[in-house]
Amino acid sequence: MGKRWIDAWTEDRFAADDPLLVEQIARCILPLRGISADEDEILVTLGAQNALYLIAAMLVDQNTQVAIEDPGYPDMRNICALRSPHIQTVPIGPEGMVFEEASNADLVFTTPSHQFPTTVTMSLERRKALLSLASERDQVIIEDDYEFETNYAGAPLPALKSLDQDGRVIYVGSLSKSLMPGLRLGFIVADRALVAELRALRRLMLRHPPGNNQRATALFLANGHFDVLVRRIHRVYRERWQVMGEALNEHLPGWASPPGFGGSSYWLTGPDGMCSERLATEALKAGVLVEPGAPFFTDERQGQNHLRLGFSSIPSTMIPEGVSLLRDVCVASSIL
Amino acid sequence: MGKRWIDAWTEDRFAADDPLLVEQIARCILPLRGISADEDEILVTLGAQNALYLIAAMLVDQNTQVAIEDPGYPDMRNICALRSPHIQTVPIGPEGMVFEEASNADLVFTTPSHQFPTTVTMSLERRKALLSLASERDQVIIEDDYEFETNYAGAPLPALKSLDQDGRVIYVGSLSKSLMPGLRLGFIVADRALVAELRALRRLMLRHPPGNNQRATALFLANGHFDVLVRRIHRVYRERWQVMGEALNEHLPGWASPPGFGGSSYWLTGPDGMCSERLATEALKAGVLVEPGAPFFTDERQGQNHLRLGFSSIPSTMIPEGVSLLRDVCVASSIL
Repeated sequence: MGKRWIDAWTEDRFAADDPLLVEQIARCILPLRGISADEDEILVTLGAQNALYLIAAMLVDQNTQVAIEDPGYPDMRNICALRSPHIQTVPIGPEGMVFEEASNADLVFTTPSHQFPTTVTMSLERRKALLSLASERDQVIIEDDYEFETNYAGAPLPALKSLDQDGRVIYVGSLSKSLMPGLRLGFIVADRALVAELRALRRLMLRHPPGNNQRATALFLANGHFDVLVRRIHRVYRERWQVMGEALNEHLPGWASPPGFGGSSYWLTGPDGMCSERLATEALKAGVLVEPGAPFFTDERQGQNHLRLGFSSIPSTMIPEGVSLLRDVCVASSIL
Repeated sequence: MGKRWIDAWTEDRFAADDPLLVEQIARCILPLRGISADEDEILVTLGAQNALYLIAAMLVDQNTQVAIEDPGYPDMRNICALRSPHIQTVPIGPEGMVFEEASNADLVFTTPSHQFPTTVTMSLERRKALLSLASERDQVIIEDDYEFETNYAGAPLPALKSLDQDGRVIYVGSLSKSLMPGLRLGFIVADRALVAELRALRRLMLRHPPGNNQRATALFLANGHFDVLVRRIHRVYRERWQVMGEALNEHLPGWASPPGFGGSSYWLTGPDGMCSERLATEALKAGVLVEPGAPFFTDERQGQNHLRLGFSSIPSTMIPEGVSLLRDVCVASSIL
C-alpha cells in the first residue's frame, strides 16, 4: 500500500468500487461457493450488516411480507421491523429453515450454510426445494452465506445463489470472519439490474467503502493470501471444534446438536426450566464467557434453555477446562 | 499503525467509535469552529454523505417538511426526496440562504460557511437571525459545515452549532476535503439524545466506520499533523484563489461573485441564454474541466448560465492559461 497505489485509494469514487477488489472477489472467493458472477453483479458493502440494510432499504416497505428465521439474526429482524410491520418468523428444523411455513412472504431471509445461531446446515435437497417453492410463490431470497469460510467438516454444499436459475437469490458475503471485523467489508451478488439500483442507493447512503481498505484487501486476495488464510482457519477451527465437541460430550452430554458443517460455535440445548441468562452470569464469575440464547428468538422465553458457545478466539488447550467449569456452574445452579 | 494498535482497530465495535478519534475531534477540530462537545454528543460517520443520510433516515418521514438551499447539494435533495414529497427549495441571497422563506419547514438544511455551490458565506448577523427564527418556528437545523478547513480569507465565522443555545442545530463535518475523500470519514455533533438514536441506527446500517481508518486518523490528529495540514491548505488554496480571481477578472470580468471566505472553487454567472453544459463540453476539448451549474438547481434551467470552477487540485501556474482558454471557448461559442 505504498505510493504506487495512492491514486487508487485516496480519491472519491462516488458510486464505484475498486475494480481490482471486485475482480478478486469474483476470482478468489465466489468460486469457493460455486458462484460465477460478472463485475456488474457484485457490490462491495460496509460488511454484511450494511448489505442487509441496503437490501431491506431497497426492497422492504410497509406492505412487504418478510420471512425470517427464528431463532435467527436479531439485527435482521430489527432492520426489517424499521420498515414493515409484517415480519413472519419461521422455525428451524434439523435441516435448517422450514421455509414451507413462509407461504405469504415476498422476501425470505435465510442462512443456509451455517444457520445463525443454531449452526444447522441446509441439505442440497432442501436447497433445491427452497428454490423451487420460491419460484412457485415468486419470492425473493436473501442468502446470508454466514461463515462460508468455515466449511471444514465434510464437503461444502454450493450456495443457494449457485443453484439460482432465475435471479431471485440475493447473496450476501462477509470478510469480517476471515480477515477482520474492524475492516467492515462485505459484498452482495445479485441480478445486475438490482445491483445497479443498490449501487445508486449506496451512493446516497455512504458513497463507497473506504478506498484504502478495498485496495489492501484486493492486493491480499490477488497475492493468494486468502487461500492460505482459509486453510489455516480450517485447521485451527477444526481442532477447536473437535475438542469442544468432545468436552461437551463428556461434561454436558446431550446438550450439543449433532455436528454440522463446521462454523465457529456450538448451539446448546439444556433442560427445560433453566435460565440461560442467569447461567451466563454465573459462568462469567467462573471466568467462562457464554452467550444466552434468548436474544436470538422473537419470543425470548423460547431461548431460556439455549446457549451459544463460540470457539473462534479460544485456544483449544483452554476449551476442556472451560466446559468443565460450565458444568460445575450448572451443578451449583441446580441445573444439573 | 503497527502491532501496538492492532487490538484497537481489528475488532468489531458494534455501535461504538474509537474513543481516541472522538477525543481528538473534540480537541483538535471542533474548537476551530467554536464548538465545545462532550464525547456522547459526537458520532463518527462514513463521510458527510453518510451523516446526512443517517439524519434524514432518522428525522424525515412522509409528512416531514424539509427546506433545502437552491442551488444546493443535489444528493441532499435526493436523500430527502426518498423519504418525503415535501421538499421546499429556498433561494440563496448575497448572505446565503434566505431562510425567511422556509416558513413551513420542520427541518432546514444549510451550508452557512461556504454555501454549496455558490461559496457565499452567511454573516454573523444572519446566523443569529436564523437561529432566532428557527427557535420561534421550532425548526431543526442541519448545518453542513462544508469546507470548514478553507477559511483562509478573513477571520472565520463561528459555526451555527457554536451559537446554538437549545440543541436545535445538528452539525455535520467531513475530513474528506482535508485528509482524503477515499478515507470516508465525517462526523455529527448534536444533542446527546439524538446522537444515541443515530448511533443505534448506524449500528443497523453499517455498525461503525472501519477501525483502522478511525485509529489512523486519531493518531494523525493527536500528533498535531492536522493543524499543519490546515495551514498548508490555507497557504496553497489562498494562492490559487487569488490567481484564479485575477485571471477571471481579466478574461471573464463580471462573471465571478465577489470574493467570499475562501473555499476551493469559484461560482460564475455568465450572460443569460448561454448553455453551460455545451460550454463545459467545448472547454473539455480545449483541456479545461469546468462544472456546469444545472445539476445544482431543482429547476435545471436556472443553472444554464452558471459554472463552478474548482481549483483545489490545479497548480496556480496552470490557472491563468486555463481561464484564458475558457474565455477563448466562450468567444468561439458566441457566448462572448
